[in-house]
Amino acid sequence: MDPQKLTALAATIDLERRRRCGFPEVVYGPGKSIEQLRGIVTTLLEHGEPVLATRIDAEQATGLLAAFPEARYNEVARTFRVQGSGFRKSEPEPRTLKPERSHFVAVISAGTGDLPVAEEARETLDWMGVAVTMIHDVGVAGPQRLPARLDDFRDADAIVVVAGMEGALPSVVGGYVACPIIAVPTSVGYGANFGGVSALLSMLNSCANNVAVVNIDAGFKAGFLAGLIATRMHRSP
Amino acid sequence: MDPQKLTALAATIDLERRRRCGFPEVVYGPGKSIEQLRGIVTTLLEHGEPVLATRIDAEQATGLLAAFPEARYNEVARTFRVQGSGFRKSEPEPRTLKPERSHFVAVISAGTGDLPVAEEARETLDWMGVAVTMIHDVGVAGPQRLPARLDDFRDADAIVVVAGMEGALPSVVGGYVACPIIAVPTSVGYGANFGGVSALLSMLNSCANNVAVVNIDAGFKAGFLAGLIATRMHRSP
Amino acid sequence: MDPQKLTALAATIDLERRRRCGFPEVVYGPGKSIEQLRGIVTTLLEHGEPVLATRIDAEQATGLLAAFPEARYNEVARTFRVQGSGFRKSEPEPRTLKPERSHFVAVISAGTGDLPVAEEARETLDWMGVAVTMIHDVGVAGPQRLPARLDDFRDADAIVVVAGMEGALPSVVGGYVACPIIAVPTSVGYGANFGGVSALLSMLNSCANNVAVVNIDAGFKAGFLAGLIATRMHRSP
Amino acid sequence: MDPQKLTALAATIDLERRRRCGFPEVVYGPGKSIEQLRGIVTTLLEHGEPVLATRIDAEQATGLLAAFPEARYNEVARTFRVQGSGFRKSEPEPRTLKPERSHFVAVISAGTGDLPVAEEARETLDWMGVAVTMIHDVGVAGPQRLPARLDDFRDADAIVVVAGMEGALPSVVGGYVACPIIAVPTSVGYGANFGGVSALLSMLNSCANNVAVVNIDAGFKAGFLAGLIATRMHRSP
Amino acid sequence: MDPQKLTALAATIDLERRRRCGFPEVVYGPGKSIEQLRGIVTTLLEHGEPVLATRIDAEQATGLLAAFPEARYNEVARTFRVQGSGFRKSEPEPRTLKPERSHFVAVISAGTGDLPVAEEARETLDWMGVAVTMIHDVGVAGPQRLPARLDDFRDADAIVVVAGMEGALPSVVGGYVACPIIAVPTSVGYGANFGGVSALLSMLNSCANNVAVVNIDAGFKAGFLAGLIATRMHRSP
Amino acid sequence: MDPQKLTALAATIDLERRRRCGFPEVVYGPGKSIEQLRGIVTTLLEHGEPVLATRIDAEQATGLLAAFPEARYNEVARTFRVQGSGFRKSEPEPRTLKPERSHFVAVISAGTGDLPVAEEARETLDWMGVAVTMIHDVGVAGPQRLPARLDDFRDADAIVVVAGMEGALPSVVGGYVACPIIAVPTSVGYGANFGGVSALLSMLNSCANNVAVVNIDAGFKAGFLAGLIATRMHRSP
Amino acid sequence: MDPQKLTALAATIDLERRRRCGFPEVVYGPGKSIEQLRGIVTTLLEHGEPVLATRIDAEQATGLLAAFPEARYNEVARTFRVQGSGFRKSEPEPRTLKPERSHFVAVISAGTGDLPVAEEARETLDWMGVAVTMIHDVGVAGPQRLPARLDDFRDADAIVVVAGMEGALPSVVGGYVACPIIAVPTSVGYGANFGGVSALLSMLNSCANNVAVVNIDAGFKAGFLAGLIATRMHRSP
Amino acid sequence: MDPQKLTALAATIDLERRRRCGFPEVVYGPGKSIEQLRGIVTTLLEHGEPVLATRIDAEQATGLLAAFPEARYNEVARTFRVQGSGFRKSEPEPRTLKPERSHFVAVISAGTGDLPVAEEARETLDWMGVAVTMIHDVGVAGPQRLPARLDDFRDADAIVVVAGMEGALPSVVGGYVACPIIAVPTSVGYGANFGGVSALLSMLNSCANNVAVVNIDAGFKAGFLAGLIATRMHRSP
Repeated sequence: MDPQKLTALAATIDLERRRRCGFPEVVYGPGKSIEQLRGIVTTLLEHGEPVLATRIDAEQATGLLAAFPEARYNEVARTFRVQGSGFRKSEPEPRTLKPERSHFVAVISAGTGDLPVAEEARETLDWMGVAVTMIHDVGVAGPQRLPARLDDFRDADAIVVVAGMEGALPSVVGGYVACPIIAVPTSVGYGANFGGVSALLSMLNSCANNVAVVNIDAGFKAGFLAGLIATRMHRSP
Repeated sequence: MDPQKLTALAATIDLERRRRCGFPEVVYGPGKSIEQLRGIVTTLLEHGEPVLATRIDAEQATGLLAAFPEARYNEVARTFRVQGSGFRKSEPEPRTLKPERSHFVAVISAGTGDLPVAEEARETLDWMGVAVTMIHDVGVAGPQRLPARLDDFRDADAIVVVAGMEGALPSVVGGYVACPIIAVPTSVGYGANFGGVSALLSMLNSCANNVAVVNIDAGFKAGFLAGLIATRMHRSP
Repeated sequence: MDPQKLTALAATIDLERRRRCGFPEVVYGPGKSIEQLRGIVTTLLEHGEPVLATRIDAEQATGLLAAFPEARYNEVARTFRVQGSGFRKSEPEPRTLKPERSHFVAVISAGTGDLPVAEEARETLDWMGVAVTMIHDVGVAGPQRLPARLDDFRDADAIVVVAGMEGALPSVVGGYVACPIIAVPTSVGYGANFGGVSALLSMLNSCANNVAVVNIDAGFKAGFLAGLIATRMHRSP
Repeated sequence: MDPQKLTALAATIDLERRRRCGFPEVVYGPGKSIEQLRGIVTTLLEHGEPVLATRIDAEQATGLLAAFPEARYNEVARTFRVQGSGFRKSEPEPRTLKPERSHFVAVISAGTGDLPVAEEARETLDWMGVAVTMIHDVGVAGPQRLPARLDDFRDADAIVVVAGMEGALPSVVGGYVACPIIAVPTSVGYGANFGGVSALLSMLNSCANNVAVVNIDAGFKAGFLAGLIATRMHRSP
Repeated sequence: MDPQKLTALAATIDLERRRRCGFPEVVYGPGKSIEQLRGIVTTLLEHGEPVLATRIDAEQATGLLAAFPEARYNEVARTFRVQGSGFRKSEPEPRTLKPERSHFVAVISAGTGDLPVAEEARETLDWMGVAVTMIHDVGVAGPQRLPARLDDFRDADAIVVVAGMEGALPSVVGGYVACPIIAVPTSVGYGANFGGVSALLSMLNSCANNVAVVNIDAGFKAGFLAGLIATRMHRSP
Repeated sequence: MDPQKLTALAATIDLERRRRCGFPEVVYGPGKSIEQLRGIVTTLLEHGEPVLATRIDAEQATGLLAAFPEARYNEVARTFRVQGSGFRKSEPEPRTLKPERSHFVAVISAGTGDLPVAEEARETLDWMGVAVTMIHDVGVAGPQRLPARLDDFRDADAIVVVAGMEGALPSVVGGYVACPIIAVPTSVGYGANFGGVSALLSMLNSCANNVAVVNIDAGFKAGFLAGLIATRMHRSP
Repeated sequence: MDPQKLTALAATIDLERRRRCGFPEVVYGPGKSIEQLRGIVTTLLEHGEPVLATRIDAEQATGLLAAFPEARYNEVARTFRVQGSGFRKSEPEPRTLKPERSHFVAVISAGTGDLPVAEEARETLDWMGVAVTMIHDVGVAGPQRLPARLDDFRDADAIVVVAGMEGALPSVVGGYVACPIIAVPTSVGYGANFGGVSALLSMLNSCANNVAVVNIDAGFKAGFLAGLIATRMHRSP
Repeated sequence: MDPQKLTALAATIDLERRRRCGFPEVVYGPGKSIEQLRGIVTTLLEHGEPVLATRIDAEQATGLLAAFPEARYNEVARTFRVQGSGFRKSEPEPRTLKPERSHFVAVISAGTGDLPVAEEARETLDWMGVAVTMIHDVGVAGPQRLPARLDDFRDADAIVVVAGMEGALPSVVGGYVACPIIAVPTSVGYGANFGGVSALLSMLNSCANNVAVVNIDAGFKAGFLAGLIATRMHRSP
C-alpha cells in the first residue's frame, strides 16, 4: 500500500479523549514515519492540545525538530514535546529538588541504567502540569542512600519507582511511605534478568501493600498514573 | 522446633505501621496456626486496631470464630474481620448500589469465578472505611453489559477491575473513565491461562493509560491501593 | 552445496494442491533466493495459477518486480502478487467500504502497528476472490469506536481480528456477532508482551465462544481460513 | 457472603444471546454450586432453550439429575443436556458413522486419552443440531489408520481434530481436505508436554493453511466453532 | 521389584565422603521407605558419624524416632538428627542470640513462611558444629527492622538469607556487610511468584556483589555452604 | 457415554505393528479402566504376543493380577508383564551383573529416586529379549563411582542413562564410550528442577556427541530405543 | 589477554578421542579466530585425521580455504572438510539416491528452510564413511509425499528426520519403519515456534516409540548418532 | 537531557564502600559514555583506589586508554584496570600455575567459549590481590581431563567453575573437593540452551552440596565472592 495513504489512515486522532479521560492523546512513536508524526502533531496543535510523543528515536526527532523548531526533544527519555503547561524549550534541571508548592510526585530510580525510563516518567508528569522530585541512584545495595533522601519523598502524593535487575526498590520505598507507589520494572541487567522479567516478578510479588506495577520500561504509563492520582487529589471539588 | 515457641516468634506484630503507612497491619493467613492467629488478633484488638485477616481457610475460620464470636468470616472472600469503621456482624448487601455519599471505589468483575477476589477487595475497602459499589458479571463477551452500568462507576475515585481468562476488562473500563484503575488478574480459566498468567500479561500490556496491575488473585492489595487513593483524596488538607 | 542446485531442489512445487485443497500453493518468502522465487513464480504462471507470495522483503521484491513487471508488491503487507481473480496492478483503496455484493469477510485491526498483518490478510482474501471490508484502529481502549462501525461488520461471513498488546479485541468483536472469528495475535508491543505471547494467550482464553486463533503475526493464515469459510458458504451446491 | 445470595447473583443469565449470537448461553460448571446450576437450568428451560452444561463433575451431575430426571449426563464428556434438537435420553452410538444427510462435521481424535475432549465437541455439535461423524484412534504413529478413513471425513463442512502429546494430527488431516479445521490440543501426555503446551504449539505452528486453534482441552469451543461454520453454510439465504 | 531388595540397593552409603569432602554424607528423605532410612542411619552410627537427615516427613519421623529414641526431629525444619557435635535432644532456643564465641553464621529470614527453610539451615549448621544467630521477620517492607539488628549479624563469617515473594532481602543485607552471603529463595507467595521463581530471579540479579544463590527452598545447601566457609576460616593452619 | 462401549472402542489394538515396527504394541496404562486393560491383554495373548503394560498403578495392577495370576507386576517400575522371551514370574536379581553373552545394553542411573525410570527401561529391554546390566547410584557428585564400574558398561551395544536434578550423568558417560547413549531426564529434584526440565535441558545441551534424549521420565521409550539398536546389531543379515 | 596466547591455549586438541570414542575430534567454529582454526586443522592433518569443522561462517571459510585449498566448504551446511574416507573436493549430488551398498542412513527433511541442518547431518555422515540417502520436502501437510518415497528409506539402518514449525515429521516416519530415528528440531518458523521450541516439544512428546531427540538445529549431532548406529551394525565382529 | 549533566549525575561514586564492604566500588561499563567512565576513573584514582571496570567494549576501551595510558585492557575479559595490588601493565601468563604461596583460588572452565567469563573472574581476583590458578578446557565430555589436574585445584580456598551448555562441570568438581564452589553458567551454546538457562538450572540443581550459583556470564561476581572467601580466611585475626 502507498505509505501516503497510510499516513491519512493513521491520523485518526482521538480528539475526544481529553473530555473522556482528562488528558489529550499521547503519540507513540514506534512504527510511525516522520510524515505521519508531523501530521499528528500538527493536528493536535491546531486543536490547542499540548503534545507529548514517546519512544521517538533520533531520526524521528530530527525530522520533527525541523518542522517544529520550538519543540524539545529529550534524548535520554526519547520524548518529544511542544506547548502545554509544563513546557519550556530549555530543559529543567536534572536533579529537580522538592518543589515549593506542597503537591508533587517523586520519581525514584535505582541505577544509572534506569534513567531513561525515569526521565520518560518525569517528562510525562511535567506535561500533565505536575511538580516532580527526581531521586536517582538509590538502589538497595547502598542501604544508606534511600533513607538519606527520605525528606525529599515522604510527602509525595504518589511515587514512581524505577528499577531493573532484582527490582527490590519499590518494596523498600513502600515501607517508608503511605502513598500509592507505581513500580516500573526496567530491562536493565543481563543473563537471568530476561529483559526485565526478574524485576517485573519482584514488583508483582512485593510484600509492600501499596505497590502497583506497570509494563517493563513503561515510564510513560507510570508517570501518567502517578500524575492522575496527584491531579485528582488537588482539583477543586 | 516447638510450635509453641513459633507462636511467640511469629507474633512480632508491626504496631508502628499505622503511623508509618496510614493503616494497621493486615494478617495473612496461610501457614499460620489457629493459635498464632488468635494471638495476633488479640494483640491487635488490645491496641484498639480494627482487624482484617485474609486467605483464612474454613478450619482457621472455625478456630477464630470460637475465640472471637463477634467477628465475621466472609467465606467467599476468605476474610476474617472484627471491629473497625466499616465493621458489621451482618454482611452488607451483595450488590451494593452506588453509595449516596459522593466518594467511593467501584469493584468491577468479569465472571462468577472472579467473585472471591472481588469480595476480598470489597472487604478490604470496607475495613478501610471506603464506600464501595460492586458491579458483577460484565465480562467483555457480553459487550452491552458494561456500558449499561456506566452511571454506577463513572465518578468513582478509583476502580478495581477483577478478571481471569483473557483479562480484557480493565482495558475496556479504562477507556470509559479518567480515574486510576487497579487491575487484578485471577487464576480463573483453564489450559493456556496458566493459572492467571494470561490475564496478568493482558493487563500489563493494556493499551489504556490508566491501568496498573497487582499480583494474580491479589484482591486485598488491589482493594488496599484503591482505598489509599480514595482516602487520601478526601482527607482534610 | 551449489546454490544453483538448491534452486532446482526447492522448486518441487505442489501443483496438485488446488485439486486437493481448493487453492494453489502459496509461496513463503523467507530463506528463498531471488532465483528460487523467480523459478517458482514462473512455474505457477505456466500452469495458469494466480500467484501469492508472502513475507517478501524489499530486496526480494525488487528482484521479482524486475522479472515480472506486471506484478504488484504491497510493501506494508510484504506480499507479492501476479494474476488471478482479485488481481489489479493498482492497489485497492485502503479503507475498502463494505462491498455491495452481500458476501464478504471483515478484517478488523486494533492499532496502527497491526496494519501489516491486517494487510497480509486482505491481500490473501483478495487473491482468493473474496470481498473484504477493512476496519482499522478500533482498539478496546477507545470503547466507542468499534460499535460505531457495527453496521460494517455485522453481516460478514467470517471476521479476521488482528491485535497486539493485550489482544482483547477478538473477545469484544465476538460478543457482537454470530459468525466465526479468526483471531491473529501480533508482536506489536514491548516488555511483557514477549513478542506477541500476551496477545496469543488472551485470544486462546477468550470468553467468546466463536473465536479461533492462529500463530503470532499469521495474517496469511487468518485470511486464508476466513476466505475458506466464505467461499464454501456461497459455492453452488 | 451468604451462598444463597451468590446464587441469585450468579443467575443473571444472558437470555438475549440467541438473538445476538445465534445460540443460547451455555452453562460452564466449575465453581458453581448445585443450587446455582439448578437455578440456571430452570430459567433456561422456562424460556424454552435447550440446555447444555459443560465440565459438570460427578457430584454436580448427581445433583442435577435428581432435579431433572429427563436429562442426560455424558460422564466421559462431562456434559449435561436436556431438551433441544439433538437431545435423546439414550445416548447416540459411540462410533457414529457418516450421517446420510450430506452435511456434517467430523470429529477426529488421536488416542484414547483424547476421547473426553472429542466427546465434549460431539455433544456440543449434537446440541446445535449438527450431524457428526466420530473417527477415533487415528494418531500419526499408525500412518495407515487415517487414510483408511478418508471417505468418512473428506466431505465434511468442518473438522474438529483432537490430539495431545505431539499434536501432529491436525497438520496431517489438513493436507487431505479443503475445509476449515478447528484443532484442539489436549493435556494428554506427560513430562515435556507441559499440560498440553506441546500440542498447542504444534497446532499453532501447523504448516497446513486451514488449521485454526482453540484453548487446551477446549472441546466445547471447537465443537461450537465447527457447528457455527456448518449451520451457517446451510441456512436458507 | 521387591522393596526389600531396594533397601539393600539404596544403602550404598558413601562412607568415604568425610575424607574427601570434610563432612559425612547427609540423608535426603523423599522417596525413601522407613526401612531404608533406618538402615542408612544405623550404618552411619556404626561408623561413628553424626546423622543429619533432611526433608523427613511426619510419617518417616515417627518410624525413625521409634527406632532411635535418642534422636531429635525438628518438625518445622523437617530434619532428623542423632549424635554429633551440636546435637542435644532438647532443642536450642529459637531466637539464638549472637554466640559469645567470636565466630558464627547468621541466618536471616524475611517472613513467617520462610521459617522452615531457615530452620533447615540452622540445623545443618548446628550439625556441622557452627554457632548460629537467627534473625527472623526482617523483610524489606518494614525497613527499620533490619538495621535494628545490624549488631547481631555484622561480624558473621557468612550469612544465609532466606526470603520468598520478591526475594529482595539478600540485596539489602549485602549492602551492610563484607562477608559472603548465601541466598535461598523460598516458594512462599502466590500467583506470579511461580513457586519461588520470582525470588530466585531476584537473587540471581542482585546488585550486591557478595550474593551467591542456591536452589529454591534449599535450606540445607545454604547452611552447608555457609558452614563450610565458617569452619574453614577457623581451622588451624 | 457408557464406559462399556468405551472399552470396545479402545480395544482397537494395532496387531499389525509387529510386522511394521518389529515389536508388538505396548499398553499405556493411564486413563484406562481395569476392564479396558483386561480386554487388551486378553486380545494380545490370544494373538500370541508377549504383553508389556507401562504406568500401571497399584489399583490397576490388582485388577490385572486377579485376571492373569501368571503375570508379574513390578511395583517400582509400574510395569505389568505376561509371557514372552524374557518373562519369568519371579523377578530378576536387582543388580544384574554384566551378562555372559557378549551383547547387552547397560542401564545406568544417578540416584535412588531415578530407580523407577531405570526399572521401566530394564523391564522393556527384558521384554524385548535383550540382556541388561544395571548400574545404580553413580551420580556425578561421587566422581570415583562411575569409573569404578567402567568394565561393566564399556562394551555395551547401547546405554540408557537415567538422571534427574542437574542431569549431568549422560555427558560424563558419553566421554567414556563409543556407543550411542539414550538419555532419560527424570522429574527427581525440587525447586528449580521444574519437574525435570533442568535435567532435560542439560541432556539436550550435552557436549558429548553420542547422546540423544527422550521425554522426562520416559523409561520405556529409552529402553525401547536402546533395545532396537541392540537387536538390530545382532540379527542375522 | 593476547589473542596469540589464546590460540595456543585453545589448541589442546583431544588426539586420544578416536581411540576412546571411535572418531576423531570435530571442530566447532563459533568464537574461534581464523588463526585458531588453522592451527587446529593443521594439527589434525599432521596426525592423519580427516577434518570436519561445523558452523563455519563465510569469513572463517575464506580464511581456511586460503590455507587449505584442497578443502571443501559447504556453504549451505556451513561445514568445512578436508581429507578422509568420504572426502571429495567436488560435492556429492544433492539428491543422492539410495546407495547400492545395502547399508545406509536416510536423512529426511520437511521443508526448504530445514536444508542447512539436513546438509550438516549429511556431511557428518559422509565424513564418517556412511552412505546417505537424502529425502527433501516431505512435510506432513502434503500427506502423499512421504509414502511415495517409502522405498528409499524403509531399509535404512537409522534415519535422521529434520523438521521445524510443528515438528510432526518424525512421528509420521516413525510409524513406517522399525529402525531408530534421530529427530532434529529446527528453528525454522516464526511467532509461537519460539526459535525451535515448538518442534522440540513435539519430538520429545512423539507417540512413536522409536524417536530420540537432539538439540535444536543440531544437524551434526543427529548425523553423528545415526552414523554411530550404522557403523557399529556393520563392523566385523 | 543534556548528556553533560548526566555525567555529573552518574558520577556519584560510592567512596564509602571500601569501609563498608571491604573493597572499593567496581565500575560497570554498559550504558556509560566514555566521558562518564573517564570521570569515574579519575575520581577513584584521586582517592587512591585501584580501578576495575567490567564489560568495557572496544570503543570504550580505546577512549579510556587514551586518557589513562598506564592502564590495561583485557580484550577477552573486557576488563579495564589501573593501579592496585595485582596490577601490571603487562598481562599475567595465561595458564598461571598454582602459585607458590599456599593460598589461592582456582578458576576452572569447561570450553573455549567460556574463556571470557573465566578471564573476568581472574582479573577480579587479581585486582583483589588473590593468587589464581587457571584450569581451562576440562569439560565433562573428556572425563580424563579434570582428574589429571586435581593437584592444581585440590587445596584451593575457593573455586570458580565456569561452564555453558549442560553446565555439569561444577557438580563434578564439587565431588573432588571440600572447599566452596562458585558456579557461573555461561550463555555458550545454542538452541535449547536458551542463552545460559540450561547451565543455570543445572548448577542450581547440582547434587554436590558445596555449589552456589551466580547469574549467567557473571564472571566478576563469581571472582569477587571467591576472592572474599579467600581474603577473609587469611586476614590476621
